[in-house]
Amino acid sequence: MPDKWYNVAPDLPRPLDPPLNPETKEPIGPEALAPIFPMELIKQEVSQENWIEIPDEVQRMLGLWRPTPLHRAFSLEKELKTPARIYYKNESVSPPGSHKPNTAVAQAYYNKAEGVRRICTETGAGQWGSALSFACKLLGLEATVYMVKCSYYQKPFRKSLMHIWGATVYPSPTDLTQCGRAVLEMDPESPGSLGCAISEAVEDAATHDDAKYSLGSVLNHVLLHQTVVGLEIKEQLKMAGDKANVVVGCVGGGSNFAGAMLPFVPDKLKGEDIEFLAVEPCSCPTLTKGPYRYDFGDLAKMTPLMKMYTLGHGFIPPAIHAGGLRYHGDAPILCLLVNEGVVTPRAYHQSEVFEASMLFAATEGLVCAPETSHAVKGAIDEALKCKETGEEKCIVLNYSGHGHFDLAAYDAWLAGELEDYDYPMDKIEEALKDVPVV
Amino acid sequence: MPDKWYNVAPDLPRPLDPPLNPETKEPIGPEALAPIFPMELIKQEVSQENWIEIPDEVQRMLGLWRPTPLHRAFSLEKELKTPARIYYKNESVSPPGSHKPNTAVAQAYYNKAEGVRRICTETGAGQWGSALSFACKLLGLEATVYMVKCSYYQKPFRKSLMHIWGATVYPSPTDLTQCGRAVLEMDPESPGSLGCAISEAVEDAATHDDAKYSLGSVLNHVLLHQTVVGLEIKEQLKMAGDKANVVVGCVGGGSNFAGAMLPFVPDKLKGEDIEFLAVEPCSCPTLTKGPYRYDFGDLAKMTPLMKMYTLGHGFIPPAIHAGGLRYHGDAPILCLLVNEGVVTPRAYHQSEVFEASMLFAATEGLVCAPETSHAVKGAIDEALKCKETGEEKCIVLNYSGHGHFDLAAYDAWLAGELEDYDYPMDKIEEALKDVPVV
Repeated sequence: MPDKWYNVAPDLPRPLDPPLNPETKEPIGPEALAPIFPMELIKQEVSQENWIEIPDEVQRMLGLWRPTPLHRAFSLEKELKTPARIYYKNESVSPPGSHKPNTAVAQAYYNKAEGVRRICTETGAGQWGSALSFACKLLGLEATVYMVKCSYYQKPFRKSLMHIWGATVYPSPTDLTQCGRAVLEMDPESPGSLGCAISEAVEDAATHDDAKYSLGSVLNHVLLHQTVVGLEIKEQLKMAGDKANVVVGCVGGGSNFAGAMLPFVPDKLKGEDIEFLAVEPCSCPTLTKGPYRYDFGDLAKMTPLMKMYTLGHGFIPPAIHAGGLRYHGDAPILCLLVNEGVVTPRAYHQSEVFEASMLFAATEGLVCAPETSHAVKGAIDEALKCKETGEEKCIVLNYSGHGHFDLAAYDAWLAGELEDYDYPMDKIEEALKDVPVV
Repeated sequence: MPDKWYNVAPDLPRPLDPPLNPETKEPIGPEALAPIFPMELIKQEVSQENWIEIPDEVQRMLGLWRPTPLHRAFSLEKELKTPARIYYKNESVSPPGSHKPNTAVAQAYYNKAEGVRRICTETGAGQWGSALSFACKLLGLEATVYMVKCSYYQKPFRKSLMHIWGATVYPSPTDLTQCGRAVLEMDPESPGSLGCAISEAVEDAATHDDAKYSLGSVLNHVLLHQTVVGLEIKEQLKMAGDKANVVVGCVGGGSNFAGAMLPFVPDKLKGEDIEFLAVEPCSCPTLTKGPYRYDFGDLAKMTPLMKMYTLGHGFIPPAIHAGGLRYHGDAPILCLLVNEGVVTPRAYHQSEVFEASMLFAATEGLVCAPETSHAVKGAIDEALKCKETGEEKCIVLNYSGHGHFDLAAYDAWLAGELEDYDYPMDKIEEALKDVPVV
């Protein structure tokens, strides 16, 4: 297991564009984030050091389930009749069932070290909320989770996990925050939204001295914490006498994919034969259809503006089953790498990714999360290309989470009830009208 | 990973009593099982060889998730302030989420090798049904699962897993079998029972040439296949420079516990310091309250009579959440070892085992199946004993499955709605009146 995180910042082809103050549109410094994040995480957010030590206590907690296994997918290869070698990095073995706790335990640790007693966050389907609840339980912190109300009632079991790990979970919008009350006033029956839940969690943290806020993706320090994944992959491939030619991951905010591929960026920049494939849904085609420009991180325009590919902060995601892939933007680091041609984006429809995960379940056995099925589909397509060209590539996919709490989506697929959807360009252009030009 | 299974039969303190014909009460030979099991499994059932080769193809399939990790539970030890070392063998990492596929893939393999096209079985909450569906999918066999009707509707997600792996799942009682029709005639709204589902699956197999029947616990060959667990534990402890003093497991039919401890039996018989702790629920106290005598394996008295601890084949299990621990009998091998004093049984109430699994989730992170929580409680109590005595014992628990499909049970526990129940002696005596004396 690695004892340092890899920070790609100094190795990027050009520096990241600075975040901008949402009101003045001027670049902001790290101090602007101090009300909601602990100082050590803010330092990591802007660090130019290549390697950052993982504290012993964090290593101990990660050690509960790390290193995660890297499996060779022999049965899938055989079924595809491909000369390619396919590996999958199994992040689903963590107690909350995904890669998310890699950053949750680190964030909880730094919060605790700076005297924070309680961490507030939002969650949609519950992947991130359960990971943060787990981390807070390990460290004896309180977790307050604002869970989008429709998910709170429709997806009860990740809420059960949060309760097992001692978190307080509210169906958002609540009457506990100004923002929540405003939404309820307009619509007492509001099903909630991720944008509203973010605003509630940020407001809760900003208005209470003992509390801070925590985000599960997008930010630089989150991607940093996820690099344990790629560092382990490198080491494990070396032990297997192999070397990656393609790294594939699904992208919602970008943290699991970035965690897997960032440690390989220096190799690519040195000219090694390695590609990075970022897979997203056609229904939320941020990297494949969105422009590269400054936008807000949230609907309420409370967050700083960040330079990224975006569908517009007013983007209303269609109800697809890969709930973790419905964000309008993406991590600025990942967007820069796409813009520089280092990372290749690709979009798929949900029926074809479910077909891919059914093939994975029939061969390798495991039933993956709908988000992860995008990475599985990407890896299968790369392996089929190798079958045509005869190339013996080494393909690594980040198996970011299991589908044990998403079986209703598989039921829908098996019943032929899943619809494909291409998010139309005119709706993207419409949403972008509200994005300030800076 | 082991390449041979360990067969305890020749090492038992005395030979197993033979199974008896359910009508004549005379000992039956292996040929009596031929209509429903393939010959190679029948041979294993009666084998006196100490080691039986695991076929390459079975090793390859087990290799999809084996060897499973053996973790040292440092955080739990620290929380308990015990001088004991606690290890848990994580069988929950298999695709269906439990130890069950260890035998499912072996059984499916031998069935296929003898030309069987379809395997019939029963399932309660779905652990076994999903494991067999998974195994059949890997081998290209059809699986027909009779799932107890009330579970079919109340626990839909293990059914979803079976569908993902291509099985046909019927809510039992069905109108497809004589037995099912008879039950439906008496009560068209029957919620079903495991006894009825077994009878339906056996009838289906016995009346179709291309089909055989498969059982997930109790029988000698099932326990044999599970010994990969204990063999791996031995090897892994050796690598860690340690040696087991206590092996703990939960017991429903006995296969996960037996799989973990049987390979240690020769060591114990040679005088080594090792105990075997079999944990069951107070609501189904087979080993702790039942007499040791011949009884049928099923309600309909279709199976051979087996010598075992039993609550009577007419035992009606109370509705507890550990659905896998509700069988009236136990594996004859395990019962013999209890009767000989080699294995120590212990019973717990469901509220105390949930408390134990909450502590496990708070320290080691993982959320276990209600069945597994019995083993967790047993290990914790042994570790607390060491705290009193100062003994530095090495305690190994078989973490037989995860609780991802049992979170409603945790919700009930958190809401204070779980009731404890001691199955009363007079009801046991009543049920035993119907058991023939042989």
